[in-house]
Amino acid sequence: MNNVVYMFNCVNSTVVVKGKLNSVFMDSCKKSSVVFDSLVSSVEFVNCQSVQMQVLGKVPTISIDKTDGCQMYLSPESLDVEIVSSKSSEMNVLVPKGNGDYAEYPIPEQFKTTVAKSGLSTTVIESKG
Amino acid sequence: MNNVVYMFNCVNSTVVVKGKLNSVFMDSCKKSSVVFDSLVSSVEFVNCQSVQMQVLGKVPTISIDKTDGCQMYLSPESLDVEIVSSKSSEMNVLVPKGNGDYAEYPIPEQFKTTVAKSGLSTTVIESKG
Repeated sequence: MNNVVYMFNCVNSTVVVKGKLNSVFMDSCKKSSVVFDSLVSSVEFVNCQSVQMQVLGKVPTISIDKTDGCQMYLSPESLDVEIVSSKSSEMNVLVPKGNGDYAEYPIPEQFKTTVAKSGLSTTVIESKG
Repeated sequence: MNNVVYMFNCVNSTVVVKGKLNSVFMDSCKKSSVVFDSLVSSVEFVNCQSVQMQVLGKVPTISIDKTDGCQMYLSPESLDVEIVSSKSSEMNVLVPKGNGDYAEYPIPEQFKTTVAKSGLSTTVIESKG
């Protein structure tokens, strides 16, 4: 339960993690994927390119930083996940439709800021999908 | 009016542009700054680090991509500017207060996405600035 899986510098690798653990980190990986059951805390991607994850159980938080290309396959149990992203692109969330299929949604990566009365106002620019 | 200023690979440089022109590009520059009067189109920062700009007249759009550290000094005329940002951090907008001073506001760089009924919902995480 206190265990952490840390993947660093992996290329073309797939890691399957069984059982419940605290968190999964993927750092500076390319074309790699991770499959896990349930996490107490979070899965984090930093400095990655073309990575994938699949959660079979529950995960509270997905964190993505400086990553280009991240496919996230969710489970029915993990639909209340919070995804925190920064300085990243090409992120897609795959939501199970119930019939074995997934619906794919892109996470916005461009934002529009204007000057408002008391500071700034920033809104999401929806991608064309 | 159709003129474009393109700065590439500059380090520790300051460019002052007089008169009205179409647009200004700053590409792969470090610790550099640009001062200009008015632009018809936009000023764009790509792949820059620790850069500054000051507009003395009007600018419709500021675009920032893959840039870490961007200080933008606005003029009273340019308060309706649209700032489009992606994959960037440490961006600050300096809004003139009228007494010669500026108020500094950070542009958010972290975003929270959740699964909604018909797709995703992404909101801005306000920085503690």
